[in-house]
Amino acid sequence: MSFEPQKINGKFKGKDIVSLDQFSPKDIDILFGLAKKMQKIAYNGKPSDVLKGKIVTLIFYEPSSRTFGSFGASVKQLGGQTIDILNPQVFSSVSKGETLEDTIRVFEAYCDAIVIRHPVAGTAKIAAEAAKFVPIINAGDGIGEHPTQTLLDLYTIQEKEGKLNNLTGVMAGDLLNGRTIHSLLRGLSFYKKNTVYLLSPKELKLSKDDYKKFSSLGVKLVEIENDKDIPKNADFWYWTRTQKERFKSIKDYERLKTPFVVTKDLVARKAGKKTIIMHPLPRIGEIDPVIDSDPRAVYLSSQVRNGMYVRMALLSLIINGK
Amino acid sequence: MSFEPQKINGKFKGKDIVSLDQFSPKDIDILFGLAKKMQKIAYNGKPSDVLKGKIVTLIFYEPSSRTFGSFGASVKQLGGQTIDILNPQVFSSVSKGETLEDTIRVFEAYCDAIVIRHPVAGTAKIAAEAAKFVPIINAGDGIGEHPTQTLLDLYTIQEKEGKLNNLTGVMAGDLLNGRTIHSLLRGLSFYKKNTVYLLSPKELKLSKDDYKKFSSLGVKLVEIENDKDIPKNADFWYWTRTQKERFKSIKDYERLKTPFVVTKDLVARKAGKKTIIMHPLPRIGEIDPVIDSDPRAVYLSSQVRNGMYVRMALLSLIINGK
Amino acid sequence: MSFEPQKINGKFKGKDIVSLDQFSPKDIDILFGLAKKMQKIAYNGKPSDVLKGKIVTLIFYEPSSRTFGSFGASVKQLGGQTIDILNPQVFSSVSKGETLEDTIRVFEAYCDAIVIRHPVAGTAKIAAEAAKFVPIINAGDGIGEHPTQTLLDLYTIQEKEGKLNNLTGVMAGDLLNGRTIHSLLRGLSFYKKNTVYLLSPKELKLSKDDYKKFSSLGVKLVEIENDKDIPKNADFWYWTRTQKERFKSIKDYERLKTPFVVTKDLVARKAGKKTIIMHPLPRIGEIDPVIDSDPRAVYLSSQVRNGMYVRMALLSLIINGK
Repeated sequence: MSFEPQKINGKFKGKDIVSLDQFSPKDIDILFGLAKKMQKIAYNGKPSDVLKGKIVTLIFYEPSSRTFGSFGASVKQLGGQTIDILNPQVFSSVSKGETLEDTIRVFEAYCDAIVIRHPVAGTAKIAAEAAKFVPIINAGDGIGEHPTQTLLDLYTIQEKEGKLNNLTGVMAGDLLNGRTIHSLLRGLSFYKKNTVYLLSPKELKLSKDDYKKFSSLGVKLVEIENDKDIPKNADFWYWTRTQKERFKSIKDYERLKTPFVVTKDLVARKAGKKTIIMHPLPRIGEIDPVIDSDPRAVYLSSQVRNGMYVRMALLSLIINGK
Repeated sequence: MSFEPQKINGKFKGKDIVSLDQFSPKDIDILFGLAKKMQKIAYNGKPSDVLKGKIVTLIFYEPSSRTFGSFGASVKQLGGQTIDILNPQVFSSVSKGETLEDTIRVFEAYCDAIVIRHPVAGTAKIAAEAAKFVPIINAGDGIGEHPTQTLLDLYTIQEKEGKLNNLTGVMAGDLLNGRTIHSLLRGLSFYKKNTVYLLSPKELKLSKDDYKKFSSLGVKLVEIENDKDIPKNADFWYWTRTQKERFKSIKDYERLKTPFVVTKDLVARKAGKKTIIMHPLPRIGEIDPVIDSDPRAVYLSSQVRNGMYVRMALLSLIINGK
Repeated sequence: MSFEPQKINGKFKGKDIVSLDQFSPKDIDILFGLAKKMQKIAYNGKPSDVLKGKIVTLIFYEPSSRTFGSFGASVKQLGGQTIDILNPQVFSSVSKGETLEDTIRVFEAYCDAIVIRHPVAGTAKIAAEAAKFVPIINAGDGIGEHPTQTLLDLYTIQEKEGKLNNLTGVMAGDLLNGRTIHSLLRGLSFYKKNTVYLLSPKELKLSKDDYKKFSSLGVKLVEIENDKDIPKNADFWYWTRTQKERFKSIKDYERLKTPFVVTKDLVARKAGKKTIIMHPLPRIGEIDPVIDSDPRAVYLSSQVRNGMYVRMALLSLIINGK
């Protein structure tokens, strides 16, 4: 795809970012090249003018202070400003019965891009179709997609491993419900010869459909149920929390809350010198805090910062076309 | 009136904007002239410095994401920043029993202007009297006023029709309770020879007092109860939603929810080539979305954008005096 | 202490501001000298670039629109921007069980400093220990500390009286529970020969421990229970509200709500020409509004503005080191 604004019905509109599937490996290369430059902009101490005079609306229909903070920081690091609309379904005319389409058309009049978070899958696409002038970025729509999360995960792997193919990784936790898991598997499928060990209790295994889908897309999947079967020296570990909000019974949740924990012992037994330890956060006990200071642990350091660089790059591309 | 800061008790204070009644046609001319320039500033792609270094507090005691977004964008389009205080009665020392006057006097120390939204009529005036150094803008105080809404409505009519007198318009919906209706009638009364057809079910007719008041102010009013009686080729249609929050019985509300809908058929039968179709939003079914793409429909396009230009102009006038 | 960023584990980190006890009189001198300059920056009409390109996260776990507004204004007056995170325990991944430490480490990746407000004493210290790269400012942690409140109180006294020693003051209200009272007594103890008359009903007297502590630190304390015993011509009066949230019984609270009120009569009887009347706000009836226009009343004027100047100075010192 092209990141440049496109002429639609005689009007230029920036590229909507709704799904990871829009990206080719070449697009990802362009994005990551710019993200690398953004890293320098963010920490050189000099104010950036990349988005000076630009306004981005952050409209969040469900709470996510991390994603909200990351997008807000991305805009502001580049000298832009945000309009923050939180929980409009409670605090605004949305509560009076306004459609999402009308809300989007109103806010697009005020700004240069809209970042939307919504609990219902498919909402970002509806918003993108409603917006006539400004691009929409999907910041997570329920069990749907959260493309910038996956892009930052891929960026982190590439930064540390120098490649996105020929990788061996471990993904652990709630593989059944975890959106980040599914999305990263999709991302890895863009590249060749990647193998992922899927560590989870039986109840939280990847669904059969997902297993088939990602296998057929070219990712080699190996399901394991015991951390003894983790391969040594994998390139990355990607741990996730069990998605409490998907459980009907609190008892079931408690039993499956932290089936596998990254401990010092596990790291000593299985991790290699270059194995990076990732987590999309928040973590609720899946990684012992004693690991935080291990240089291979990136979940509280470069993985978080990379989210900002990737979002800075994406905003610059879709607003400025470069 | 003069938009320039006035010396009060030896201190300069910008002009408070509490009521539409403060404006003479000449004031409106000045404002609209500047709003026209603001339109260019907003879309020329160059950052504006008009409010650089200025801070505007947006203090909203009731939700209104549209008005909040519009004022916020107006400040930021001009290079200023906002302090956003939402629902202070729940989330702040207001909940500890502080008076509005004290709250205003605290916040005026931090900023160059305060925009206030409040559910109780008359609050903006109280705030304006409390503020000693910075101007107050009324962004809607319950069944009181919302002057910038009416100013943007007038601006939109003038932009499309080239004049604010000798107009024939149709206003429909909840004429009994609709603040925007009353306020626009007041605005039209500043100009000569305007005729407004008032379309509503009996229960939602303009009150007798309001009917008398606007008639005596010079607006010719024609009450109709059937869309057959809409005049052909009116200059503007101004549709509004039925104000659910004013009904005591949900049953009554449901019956009177959408008594008149702008449909393709109605437009074909009654609208002229230059009839503009307006709505203050949110709409809850009063206008068929199929009308949205009609070039005469301005409610999701220029009417929204004009709100930003008019507010940009007003902020510039009361903060900078020009 | 030094306000300059310190090298910790090979990384520079700005100075955390957790407690008033970190400050020596010399530190306070440096801070107040800069605050004086900030006063000029805030009102010279020229945009400041002191924090241009800098981002400060305001993370408030409990409502405080005044402190939130003051810090936000301080950042923006200096040309910086904020990321506003309000009630994350309700609206974010904190609600999913994330630890404070993880939240801080995520947000420090996005910004140059974090201002934290939290209902639990000791939280600011935990946050400061968690943050590896950016300084933490305590904006109030429950019955713990709120150092910038005391610094602005001291600044106001020095501005008006020209000194911070050899003072005679009156503190009234809820001396048992009032955090601002305890903290200002601590601040006054840094300087020599200060006498404070403590006016309160028996039930709200300073605790014995606090009485001993502040006495031993060198402040001369005189407990009184009747406003007749207020000394004439004191340098400052510092009135506070009774802390409703600390009472178990609403009846007890009502009885002790406003035991002593600053009235015109009391001022006429006891205040001198240079006695300044202070209040940390919000007030709930402890000072008759008729006093507001008295030039000696500073609670709604210079005391509020000084809060902004002191915070501007502090932010500049810990972010820029100057």
